[in-house]
Amino acid sequence: MTAESDGTTEFWPAGFSAGAVSANIKYSNRRDLMLLVTDAPASAAALFTLNRCVAAPIVLSREHLNRSSSSIRALVCNSGNANAATGKKGLDDALVMAEAVAQELSINPEEVLVASTGVIGQLLPMERVLDGISSLVATLQRDSVLDAAGAIMTTDTFPKFFTLELLLSGGSVRLSGIAKGSGMICPNMATMLAFLTTDAAITPDLLHTALKKGNRHSFNAITVDGDTSTNDMVSIIASGTGPEITAGSEDYTLFCDALEALMTFLAKLIVIDGEGATKLVGITVNGAVDDREAELAARTIAHSSLVKTAIHGEDANWGRIIAAAGRSGALFNQEDLELHFNDLSILKPGLLADFSEEAASAILTKDAYTITLRLGNGPGEATIWSCDLSKEYVDINGSYRS
Amino acid sequence: MTAESDGTTEFWPAGFSAGAVSANIKYSNRRDLMLLVTDAPASAAALFTLNRCVAAPIVLSREHLNRSSSSIRALVCNSGNANAATGKKGLDDALVMAEAVAQELSINPEEVLVASTGVIGQLLPMERVLDGISSLVATLQRDSVLDAAGAIMTTDTFPKFFTLELLLSGGSVRLSGIAKGSGMICPNMATMLAFLTTDAAITPDLLHTALKKGNRHSFNAITVDGDTSTNDMVSIIASGTGPEITAGSEDYTLFCDALEALMTFLAKLIVIDGEGATKLVGITVNGAVDDREAELAARTIAHSSLVKTAIHGEDANWGRIIAAAGRSGALFNQEDLELHFNDLSILKPGLLADFSEEAASAILTKDAYTITLRLGNGPGEATIWSCDLSKEYVDINGSYRS
Repeated sequence: MTAESDGTTEFWPAGFSAGAVSANIKYSNRRDLMLLVTDAPASAAALFTLNRCVAAPIVLSREHLNRSSSSIRALVCNSGNANAATGKKGLDDALVMAEAVAQELSINPEEVLVASTGVIGQLLPMERVLDGISSLVATLQRDSVLDAAGAIMTTDTFPKFFTLELLLSGGSVRLSGIAKGSGMICPNMATMLAFLTTDAAITPDLLHTALKKGNRHSFNAITVDGDTSTNDMVSIIASGTGPEITAGSEDYTLFCDALEALMTFLAKLIVIDGEGATKLVGITVNGAVDDREAELAARTIAHSSLVKTAIHGEDANWGRIIAAAGRSGALFNQEDLELHFNDLSILKPGLLADFSEEAASAILTKDAYTITLRLGNGPGEATIWSCDLSKEYVDINGSYRS
Repeated sequence: MTAESDGTTEFWPAGFSAGAVSANIKYSNRRDLMLLVTDAPASAAALFTLNRCVAAPIVLSREHLNRSSSSIRALVCNSGNANAATGKKGLDDALVMAEAVAQELSINPEEVLVASTGVIGQLLPMERVLDGISSLVATLQRDSVLDAAGAIMTTDTFPKFFTLELLLSGGSVRLSGIAKGSGMICPNMATMLAFLTTDAAITPDLLHTALKKGNRHSFNAITVDGDTSTNDMVSIIASGTGPEITAGSEDYTLFCDALEALMTFLAKLIVIDGEGATKLVGITVNGAVDDREAELAARTIAHSSLVKTAIHGEDANWGRIIAAAGRSGALFNQEDLELHFNDLSILKPGLLADFSEEAASAILTKDAYTITLRLGNGPGEATIWSCDLSKEYVDINGSYRS
């Protein structure tokens, strides 16, 4: 398996082109509307937010996947406006976006997936969106995938693109993805936005199974601020220009593993670029009664404002970590707890804290490290990737809408 | 019912005295150790944190209430060190504190409640604590209750004291309390620390029932940062110098109502003085399937970092409020949602947002207001009192331990 992340798009899977334009939806002087197009009908699968306040494009994309039997030709996405909490007009607008793309490409509207990200509760400026769509097709080319990655950014500080290639029995397969995150990041079944592509020849069902499997420990295992978005969506489209992958084959197992690696890489990029974030911290809880309880404790630690500010302050304030675990609902006896920062033992059973502040500081001043809490009463384990809580987060979110 | 909050202690219930000294436990040049003493054995009741990482003084106080049959003579509390996650040595230290107080007052150790607040995971400097206890008794007087309220502060910016008086059939009864909050505030069964006093002649069982009833909509309905502490404790001690209150009487109903009013007032003071807080915001969810679902949605909104930063930024970012409700797990149809800031309609059914930014701004710039979200599918209702998330919170908690 070889990974490529230096921004060149040479290894992007065959069978796709991308385009991006500035439509002035909210941002000016930057691209905010992108289009991903397949050369031929392609297998697709997607996971969507479980938030009850679900955005219009999510409703539409789920419907289009059903109506097209998961055979997709294009994906259009805007930033700066989430088209969420926009009622019936919002649903109409999402459909109009799909219809406009379909007309430009001479395909069926149900072959178009639609996504949006940005402010909730405002109607899309449809005139500018339609103007943008009419000029999008002219920008379609292979090299524009990085422009597309830039066009879906909101408060992200860099575009997120990654490709990997793996050798299967039938030849090499490429897996690639663009993603955006930043705020309202605590995905539940999908992340803010991640659009994955592969050249594998694979059925929508197998794609969906692989996507769901990979999602659990990648996008569903990250948090920036604990707020699950109304617009979360991760999709994968397979152009079929590469080797065929069949159910139950060793190739499929390898494909699933590679997809999970791609998704995990993109998920971590989202945390690294979380609003105001300066640290990427893996929070592992093991020795829990079961995986569910381990995840409960890991999520509670990862969401604790007191833990996140201590991480920001590079303070070895381990008491906040065990206090968060203690309120999580996970079962344990506090006398059994063991805590490590990377490999450094911080707390031994019996609540014995005996560590060198210098050694702890050498870890806490790093950009990335892991916190491991052992509950000591079972085989359950989970890891959540989180970041710190900084004054920049407050700055960004005190004034985001206006 | 007459309320008194101007700081004079003249109305403090009869039968108590208080003292406070500087013991240099963590803070210097301020009082950090306090003692509350009853003139005679007194009925008591208390509620304790449900955090699994429970502090040593909580374990000891629960045991002392049991062993003394809820007949209490004194309560000692220090700030600057929580005596939490301190293992067997911490339990020994809490007992030594009770024994030292008992010796000074010539009472039994099990008649002493012990509480601590401050940093987790450090052993108490017992020599300084015991020096402090030996000089505490000389400071005991009626007027020192305000000094005691000051001595339990950590990052609080003002001492919290309140007294109210109500006329019952047998004469007037006084109810009073001191409290501290600030950070790690999301009480579960009790708040950080609140020590209540009354002169009523009432059994421990009736006191406990009244305390539990009052707690639900007061201390258990506030949050600063969603972190339930290891040291939460709310206690009430009745000196019995006033009129007798019996089970099932109208007086008991009035007493319970007054106790809830006292607890609610102190709980709101804790939110107002939350770390870095500048706003007190009541979050009411109604029209839920039941009260539990309403509370689920209200708590999720109250804990959302995105909602709290928008409140701080005085931004009418209503989309974040319904997005938080949408991920809470509470059942509703987004088309039915109605949202108000105070009496101003922000969102009408059908996701129709039609409000004047000026009118919204006039509310959001206030120090205190209410947000009411109607889910529209049942009779359930709940209110949680929350505050904003500011850069000061990050500052305070990035460097609290060191």
